[in-house]
Amino acid sequence: MSKTKQSLKKLETFKNPNPNRDYVITITCPEFTSVCPKTGLPDFGEIVINYTPNKLCIELKSLKYYLLGFRNKGIFYEYLVNKILDDLSRLLKPKEITITGNFTPRGGISTSVTAKYSGSKL
Amino acid sequence: MSKTKQSLKKLETFKNPNPNRDYVITITCPEFTSVCPKTGLPDFGEIVINYTPNKLCIELKSLKYYLLGFRNKGIFYEYLVNKILDDLSRLLKPKEITITGNFTPRGGISTSVTAKYSGSKL
Amino acid sequence: MSKTKQSLKKLETFKNPNPNRDYVITITCPEFTSVCPKTGLPDFGEIVINYTPNKLCIELKSLKYYLLGFRNKGIFYEYLVNKILDDLSRLLKPKEITITGNFTPRGGISTSVTAKYSGSKL
Amino acid sequence: MSKTKQSLKKLETFKNPNPNRDYVITITCPEFTSVCPKTGLPDFGEIVINYTPNKLCIELKSLKYYLLGFRNKGIFYEYLVNKILDDLSRLLKPKEITITGNFTPRGGISTSVTAKYSGSKL
Amino acid sequence: MSKTKQSLKKLETFKNPNPNRDYVITITCPEFTSVCPKTGLPDFGEIVINYTPNKLCIELKSLKYYLLGFRNKGIFYEYLVNKILDDLSRLLKPKEITITGNFTPRGGISTSVTAKYSGSKL
Amino acid sequence: MSKTKQSLKKLETFKNPNPNRDYVITITCPEFTSVCPKTGLPDFGEIVINYTPNKLCIELKSLKYYLLGFRNKGIFYEYLVNKILDDLSRLLKPKEITITGNFTPRGGISTSVTAKYSGSKL
Amino acid sequence: MSKTKQSLKKLETFKNPNPNRDYVITITCPEFTSVCPKTGLPDFGEIVINYTPNKLCIELKSLKYYLLGFRNKGIFYEYLVNKILDDLSRLLKPKEITITGNFTPRGGISTSVTAKYSGSKL
Amino acid sequence: MSKTKQSLKKLETFKNPNPNRDYVITITCPEFTSVCPKTGLPDFGEIVINYTPNKLCIELKSLKYYLLGFRNKGIFYEYLVNKILDDLSRLLKPKEITITGNFTPRGGISTSVTAKYSGSKL
Amino acid sequence: MSKTKQSLKKLETFKNPNPNRDYVITITCPEFTSVCPKTGLPDFGEIVINYTPNKLCIELKSLKYYLLGFRNKGIFYEYLVNKILDDLSRLLKPKEITITGNFTPRGGISTSVTAKYSGSKL
Amino acid sequence: MSKTKQSLKKLETFKNPNPNRDYVITITCPEFTSVCPKTGLPDFGEIVINYTPNKLCIELKSLKYYLLGFRNKGIFYEYLVNKILDDLSRLLKPKEITITGNFTPRGGISTSVTAKYSGSKL
Repeated sequence: MSKTKQSLKKLETFKNPNPNRDYVITITCPEFTSVCPKTGLPDFGEIVINYTPNKLCIELKSLKYYLLGFRNKGIFYEYLVNKILDDLSRLLKPKEITITGNFTPRGGISTSVTAKYSGSKL
Repeated sequence: MSKTKQSLKKLETFKNPNPNRDYVITITCPEFTSVCPKTGLPDFGEIVINYTPNKLCIELKSLKYYLLGFRNKGIFYEYLVNKILDDLSRLLKPKEITITGNFTPRGGISTSVTAKYSGSKL
Repeated sequence: MSKTKQSLKKLETFKNPNPNRDYVITITCPEFTSVCPKTGLPDFGEIVINYTPNKLCIELKSLKYYLLGFRNKGIFYEYLVNKILDDLSRLLKPKEITITGNFTPRGGISTSVTAKYSGSKL
Repeated sequence: MSKTKQSLKKLETFKNPNPNRDYVITITCPEFTSVCPKTGLPDFGEIVINYTPNKLCIELKSLKYYLLGFRNKGIFYEYLVNKILDDLSRLLKPKEITITGNFTPRGGISTSVTAKYSGSKL
Repeated sequence: MSKTKQSLKKLETFKNPNPNRDYVITITCPEFTSVCPKTGLPDFGEIVINYTPNKLCIELKSLKYYLLGFRNKGIFYEYLVNKILDDLSRLLKPKEITITGNFTPRGGISTSVTAKYSGSKL
Repeated sequence: MSKTKQSLKKLETFKNPNPNRDYVITITCPEFTSVCPKTGLPDFGEIVINYTPNKLCIELKSLKYYLLGFRNKGIFYEYLVNKILDDLSRLLKPKEITITGNFTPRGGISTSVTAKYSGSKL
Repeated sequence: MSKTKQSLKKLETFKNPNPNRDYVITITCPEFTSVCPKTGLPDFGEIVINYTPNKLCIELKSLKYYLLGFRNKGIFYEYLVNKILDDLSRLLKPKEITITGNFTPRGGISTSVTAKYSGSKL
Repeated sequence: MSKTKQSLKKLETFKNPNPNRDYVITITCPEFTSVCPKTGLPDFGEIVINYTPNKLCIELKSLKYYLLGFRNKGIFYEYLVNKILDDLSRLLKPKEITITGNFTPRGGISTSVTAKYSGSKL
Repeated sequence: MSKTKQSLKKLETFKNPNPNRDYVITITCPEFTSVCPKTGLPDFGEIVINYTPNKLCIELKSLKYYLLGFRNKGIFYEYLVNKILDDLSRLLKPKEITITGNFTPRGGISTSVTAKYSGSKL
Repeated sequence: MSKTKQSLKKLETFKNPNPNRDYVITITCPEFTSVCPKTGLPDFGEIVINYTPNKLCIELKSLKYYLLGFRNKGIFYEYLVNKILDDLSRLLKPKEITITGNFTPRGGISTSVTAKYSGSKL
């Protein structure tokens, strides 16, 4: 009945329809949730993916299942954002990609993490 | 490592410090998530609880675990809001209580459900 | 390839899980579009459905296809809102239902139409 | 160096300049803080006082010191709002007074409490 | 009765009244809709066109019919934005032009695509 | 070349498609302008028309020309709102109609005027 | 060079153009300032006047000078709002009039005062 | 009775009180209206003037009458913004000046035009 | 009773606690008022001071009285902003300072003035 | 019962999970309060910490207690922001760190202070 297991499946891609032109795709996922590894309580936030595709674009439905795969995993904010950046930059080999996670307040304190990969630096 | 099992524990209450005066408590939980029983995909929303206590008030930490108990359960919006109303009105026997669920859009359509219980009608 | 024809199919319902309690369901569809019968140009708006179910609730996916059925139909604002009210009140026989259409500006003028049906008045 | 002790001083009043006319005074204090008696951690919120004066009005500077008196006290939300209502209604004997406390989120859950006193009901 | 067919007509232009000065025109079309080629369901979004004219400016009424021509076409976001950029940059040969498409959420995920053409790079 | 003269033409109506049901139509015109009879300078504002039709509805294009007819007329706010109410209530004989004019600040002071007609009181 | 002295002149009125119909005029003056009689420091706020005219309407320019007359006067909030109400209700003998003063924060606390006069109660 | 004719009078200036320092003046006129030369219908928008004065500053009252001079003129957006830029840059010979026109939607499409003059380029 | 005379007193400073580090202080005064030298009527606005201190910081209470000193002075916007810049830059000799005045609309037109001083350019 | 004493404990850190990549962490604490050393009255504000970690990241719970340690301390805005910058830059030796304090209005004037440290300058 749950599709959580399915979400562990691989991310899928499709061919960039305009590989000769640099252009930017921004994907915003305000319904992200994972689990705090320290307290076992859920964390909530928004994941923003901003990239300039090279030969491949990310397929949105598989991205949704990929993000859903963190739902019941214990993971720290800093590690999470860097892991999504690693996974997507390895898969897409984009010209440039930035991942931002904006997390809701805990104890009156809210946190956001932003990490960037530039194809030329690889 | 996860506290999801703990969340199935009973809701707790404390004695209303002013049972002789009618007053209103509003509790807003914008980080609610459950699972759509049809698609197996997560639903996201905000639960608002508004009540006039009688002899008992709801303890906030146990309420948090109670709501966390829906995280991986398949449940429809209409049933969910009515179930929270049933559970809280049975436990608290409040003078009046209203539960509202405001859920995020699916397929371009967003839904909210509001149900109310009045002590005098029981 | 298009599902527009499918959208002409009948609206579907499911049994109200709490027929003994009066409660309110609000459904907001900000992605509504139809065609102006006078100019042939598209109209855009938001349809809000607010009802107290009796024995039946409206199934959301079939509602989406029902509203999609207006996409290429020529229809005036006033007629449209009254027709949705007629269709849903006949189908659901709700205790009360209100339909609101908020339409985007044309020639610097924006319009909204609100119609209501009360079961007891039928 | 601190004026916290001063804040325990009595609330002061001045004569209502228009005792023959019913009118409404609303005072909003968005900088309220006290301490959670359970965790020892600070709580933050906004206190709103809305009243129809009878013979007396509340003096604003003494009200500021009165609210400052809760800064390092352990007190629950429900008790706090009812205590402010008791203190002000005893002092002012107003025709009507409502106290609202809107508190910032803790663990993803925010709370507000509203209590009212009507002179005729005393 | 429908003007959808008319919308397939050619885009029209008029002479830039100030070809000697670089200046910027921004056109915002919040009422864009097309069809998802995968699901056959409608997509909704806002198209923003920002350009520095060279010898020609785009005529707004013909632009409206051009955008209306996508109403019942199945087209992906990435392809759509690049196609509008190709069509307008070929027609206007502007000094610079940027097309942005901001699309409404599907499955809790919203997407925007931005592509740019610079006359000097042609 | 100007349609200002045309705007003095009569308001037009169409038959209410649902005369047996009371429903509400709200028309908002944020682009209203007239002339201050005292200073000869333009006034700017928003006219809101809210009515329950009886046998007739107002046709929007003719309403636009009717409001355009005030563009170069000297008229006070209070008289203007009452005149629109008189013209529309005589024409439509609605069950109820309210006209509101919200005017932009002059000398740091902004004004709004609201007048209402109820069919039963006529 | 200053018009402050002029502001002490009498308020002026004009004849209500529609004395047979009850309608509402709302005047908002966000640029009000007076002086705190205790500290000698300026107070700032917004005065809102809402009335149903009887035989007379308030002339806006003279109202502006009347309000300007408080610029360098020491006056408490509660007294000020009641004085404006007294002055305007004596002058206009309106069917109903409400005066609201919304004052900016002092020491983290903001205040508003609302007083009402109803012609029938006089 | 109308001051529209007066508005055709010349723009006036005053001496820059600080000609030795580069500083920026921004003037926003949200109440601009002209006439569409194609349809004869009014256009509405906001004109923003942003400049670094040289020896002269624009006098605000004469600017108001200058802008009022477009009220009943048929003029396209692109031409209008460039004409205001030409008129003001010739008159003021500023170090830098930018004119922006933000126009309200027509047929669901809104437009803005921005043109800039730099004294050094003249 | 009034402190307006006091406000003409000198601005006061205190020693920058971190003279070795460049950092930025922003002070916002939304309650500024002066008098238009042409009409004698009050002007209202917000003064924003943004500076990088050198050896001295501005003391806030004396700044308040300094700004209060303009309350009944006739002064043009352009001169005012430049005068505050001159006074503060002479007093503080800051590394950099910017003064902005944002003034409320007069005759439908609002104005802001921004002037900057850089220590190295002196 | 109070954890204020605990808050004086040392700030804690954890190892940066991605020391080879430059990325940015932003922490926002809107519930900051300290005491004005001059008046003894509480100050309220928001502290924003923005840094690029080097080998260490700040642990959020210990940061909360660190900030809580200022609750009853008399400290000026300028000194406070520079002290937090000194403490965190010494502890974390980050590649770059910026501290901003946005404080609520006092006497109609609000203040913010921003200080920055760059690892390469140390």
